[in-house]
Amino acid sequence: MAEQEKADRTDVNSLGEFGLIDHLTKQARVENPSTVKGVGDDAAVIDNGDLLTVVSTDMLVEGIHFDLMYTPLKHLGYKAVVVNLSDIYAMNATPKQITVSVALSNRFSVEAMEELYAGIHAACERYKVDLVGGDTTSSPKGLYISVTAIGQGEKGKVVYRNTAHVGDLICITGNLGAAYLGLQLLERERQVFLADPNMKPDLEDQNLLVGRLLKPEARKDMIELFAKNKLVPTSMIDISDGLASELYHICQQSGVGAFIEESGVPIHPDAQQMAIKFKLDPITCALSGGEDYELLFTIRPHDIEKVKYLPDIYIAGEIVKAADGIKLHTTGGNLHDITAQGWAHFKPGVE
Amino acid sequence: MAEQEKADRTDVNSLGEFGLIDHLTKQARVENPSTVKGVGDDAAVIDNGDLLTVVSTDMLVEGIHFDLMYTPLKHLGYKAVVVNLSDIYAMNATPKQITVSVALSNRFSVEAMEELYAGIHAACERYKVDLVGGDTTSSPKGLYISVTAIGQGEKGKVVYRNTAHVGDLICITGNLGAAYLGLQLLERERQVFLADPNMKPDLEDQNLLVGRLLKPEARKDMIELFAKNKLVPTSMIDISDGLASELYHICQQSGVGAFIEESGVPIHPDAQQMAIKFKLDPITCALSGGEDYELLFTIRPHDIEKVKYLPDIYIAGEIVKAADGIKLHTTGGNLHDITAQGWAHFKPGVE
Repeated sequence: MAEQEKADRTDVNSLGEFGLIDHLTKQARVENPSTVKGVGDDAAVIDNGDLLTVVSTDMLVEGIHFDLMYTPLKHLGYKAVVVNLSDIYAMNATPKQITVSVALSNRFSVEAMEELYAGIHAACERYKVDLVGGDTTSSPKGLYISVTAIGQGEKGKVVYRNTAHVGDLICITGNLGAAYLGLQLLERERQVFLADPNMKPDLEDQNLLVGRLLKPEARKDMIELFAKNKLVPTSMIDISDGLASELYHICQQSGVGAFIEESGVPIHPDAQQMAIKFKLDPITCALSGGEDYELLFTIRPHDIEKVKYLPDIYIAGEIVKAADGIKLHTTGGNLHDITAQGWAHFKPGVE
Repeated sequence: MAEQEKADRTDVNSLGEFGLIDHLTKQARVENPSTVKGVGDDAAVIDNGDLLTVVSTDMLVEGIHFDLMYTPLKHLGYKAVVVNLSDIYAMNATPKQITVSVALSNRFSVEAMEELYAGIHAACERYKVDLVGGDTTSSPKGLYISVTAIGQGEKGKVVYRNTAHVGDLICITGNLGAAYLGLQLLERERQVFLADPNMKPDLEDQNLLVGRLLKPEARKDMIELFAKNKLVPTSMIDISDGLASELYHICQQSGVGAFIEESGVPIHPDAQQMAIKFKLDPITCALSGGEDYELLFTIRPHDIEKVKYLPDIYIAGEIVKAADGIKLHTTGGNLHDITAQGWAHFKPGVE
């Protein structure tokens, strides 16, 4: 803890989100034999005899995770649930219950809360989960939503982040970058609106991009497809912070490296086109964009027979030795180190 | 929904906390057979085959639930955990895991967060629970702590709020009112300090009262005592909002009334004396004060044999027919209706 010797006050930003969690929870010891997995994966895993209980929690904060200027409350409620369910699916488990706690300032009316809960109930219905508890309280300012999702997993079938092996194939579901470009579009329109409130928003009919950001879906279908095809990935994580960041988590926790083919990273044509309009590199949007809630997983090489005819799953690369690093082989034939925003604080020397 | 016809905007305060939760969650339907108990008790109950999983969640908000002017962060972390564990004990279950999500503004340093987590870890150690997950995020302003506690209960031994029967005896653990008087003391000193920052705080050595407010304990010992003595209460709730409010919950959900003897309500001598100094009625502090985290429970009349020699359990009254209401028989011989702050919104006509 060289930090503390240098100064009495360390800014939380100096550690970053993951660094701060690591730092604050590293002294957590496991006392109960029922605690199978604690801090450090998409969700915690608890042994209940016959079954495993999988628990995930996330907090969404107004002004940090959402802007009510362009986020309808119903969509927000839906998304707050879905991002947590996504963490449960990423464990190859099935969410069954959620609790929702909301802190709200008096600028929100009962009708506004009804909208928020309409979205929460809609997500519960779509994903067949039950809202079983929560808390509603005042906030001096802003809206805070904390959701905890509780799921069931079968012993031997729950999939962690730290179990990828050299030689495993790296798979991605769906497509990446759309949510990030949806955000760019909405941010551009917000700036236009702030400059001139009479301007009409021009979302260029980009329903796919904007929809992906405001009302994402979790890959329930994939978990069902895995079960049907008797496929158990060797490791898995949901893509909430961008492919680069999630790859890093799997590699760091599994003690391996990764080799990604740019041509193997699925990007929707709408996202591809919009990236170019914004003068952004589409692969950068996929690597660093986040919020797509697709799944990144690894499989044993012989399981390619099970995966190759499955819809919406793309093989993007291979797990390699840790010493080989995390690399991207571009369509132009170059080899780049993959680095991602959001985990600079893991660099040596910070802690 | 007559409210909505009257105006487009209904203030959330018009429903109150419990009214708002009821209103927003009433459309929640149970889809999963594993959901044994949803919204409406101290905790949700989930069937996991051999065991029941019990889940409770609470959010603490700066400026609403705590004032950092007189709340050390370590105590706050401890309390945030304990209030959730208390909900699990109130189901006659044993907490095993917690998740903690924190939203904090940049006015908090890493060292401040270390203090908060030192309290969280201390509570985990004291109550033998594991910190298994959570989320750390930015907040534009203030500190928000959301804790979810997960416990294990045995089938047939989990105790609900809605199962009190006419003739059952009403029991209270420990003593009530101390936390409320601790708050009065701290609030008085805060006013003195605001008026003159050079004034020294005069807490009159009221460690018990101030300690109860700032660092409450949950009644783990009582649940263990019940198990040892093969006692299963007929209904139970933890006293977080004051005896009157908790009695109301049990009576309303069980469809019964209650008769309480003032002389049977345990109040600590320090709380008694301090109430008189503040020109408050001690029984009112016990009924409406809250934050003591004692247990209120009911037992079958013949179980009095099991309870009467147990330490720190007081028989305060009897469950009666709903038509007889919720009454207090004062030491002066008068009979009063018990009404409590915090549930005026349950009155007919609001919804």
